[in-house]
Amino acid sequence: MSKKKIPEAVISRLVVYLREVTELNKLKIRAISSSELGDRTNLSDVQVRKDLGYFGQFGVSGAGYPISDLKESLERILGKNTIWNVAIVGVGHLGSALLAYSGFNKHGLNIVAGFDTDLRKAGKTLEGILIQPIDALPAMVKEKNISIGIITVPSREAQNVADLFVAAGVECILNFAPASLNVPEHVKVKDVDLSRELETLSYHLANRNG
Amino acid sequence: MSKKKIPEAVISRLVVYLREVTELNKLKIRAISSSELGDRTNLSDVQVRKDLGYFGQFGVSGAGYPISDLKESLERILGKNTIWNVAIVGVGHLGSALLAYSGFNKHGLNIVAGFDTDLRKAGKTLEGILIQPIDALPAMVKEKNISIGIITVPSREAQNVADLFVAAGVECILNFAPASLNVPEHVKVKDVDLSRELETLSYHLANRNG
Repeated sequence: MSKKKIPEAVISRLVVYLREVTELNKLKIRAISSSELGDRTNLSDVQVRKDLGYFGQFGVSGAGYPISDLKESLERILGKNTIWNVAIVGVGHLGSALLAYSGFNKHGLNIVAGFDTDLRKAGKTLEGILIQPIDALPAMVKEKNISIGIITVPSREAQNVADLFVAAGVECILNFAPASLNVPEHVKVKDVDLSRELETLSYHLANRNG
Repeated sequence: MSKKKIPEAVISRLVVYLREVTELNKLKIRAISSSELGDRTNLSDVQVRKDLGYFGQFGVSGAGYPISDLKESLERILGKNTIWNVAIVGVGHLGSALLAYSGFNKHGLNIVAGFDTDLRKAGKTLEGILIQPIDALPAMVKEKNISIGIITVPSREAQNVADLFVAAGVECILNFAPASLNVPEHVKVKDVDLSRELETLSYHLANRNG
């Protein structure tokens, strides 16, 4: 199972399934069928069974998935029972916004270091984090056991920052710069496109009634 | 067809299908089957057929979907052939980052106005946009024909801003404040959770080899 390459889209849907079963577990509901879970997440029952099938056998045919088991399995699969340390490079507008964002902690993500290539920004403290010059990155990654790097620098600097992260041993990068990064195969890069959320809005505008 | 309520998740997947067929159209590929389109988007063929089925009959059984027709239909369904005007309220870190973000134009979204409740920020020009006091919002929505409102104010102010947008006739809101907004049924709110992208990263950390 660990050898199989799981598509990124499947992982995203696991996050959605976990949210649903967490909610259902709070309501003391014991089991859910693939078609009910599909209805709640707007996916077909076939898709739900296929996605969960990547990770082995859940539930008993005809009886649905036991909610609390499914919740625990999804948490384990998604690495939810661990706190991961995060560093951010680039504390311009977006970087500062992310430092101030309270949602990360909720998901077991702990921003512990901030860096900037602009020496005028280094030395400042933002949201309780001392911003350091980029040269300090390798040592800090080791000292703070940083697993995730966030890149919020201009495009032309993004590859350099990615190289620094990779050389320091970081294996997960969240890239907000509109640049394609070259990294070794064992490193996971997730590119964030801030406009994606707006894309579905135009559907609603185009399909208004009256 | 226009009476049917289409789930949000389906709309998100249409955006993904459109990206694929746009790519394939550039490569002069003529047709694609639901299972090929599913493979490219990590969805089952059943899911692809079900999603597209909401919007009528595409393609001919056995011959797949004609790429250029499917592309045109998806663009029309998603409202891609129109430019929508956008206003942003709250030009703190996140709002400023969004104003500077180049990705919106690419998707037919044009930020034409910025507002802030902080009078010290009003009067400044950011990214070529004059930031105005929040009182100016209703008149500007009409003058600039604004269809989409982005909220990047603190949680406690978010409902007030939503009320102003709704009263001014805005029917689509993108909400970055971690607050649930109450709006009339004809108004579409999309809540953006910046931590969602990071959530799938912990999967990769938890499932590293070696």
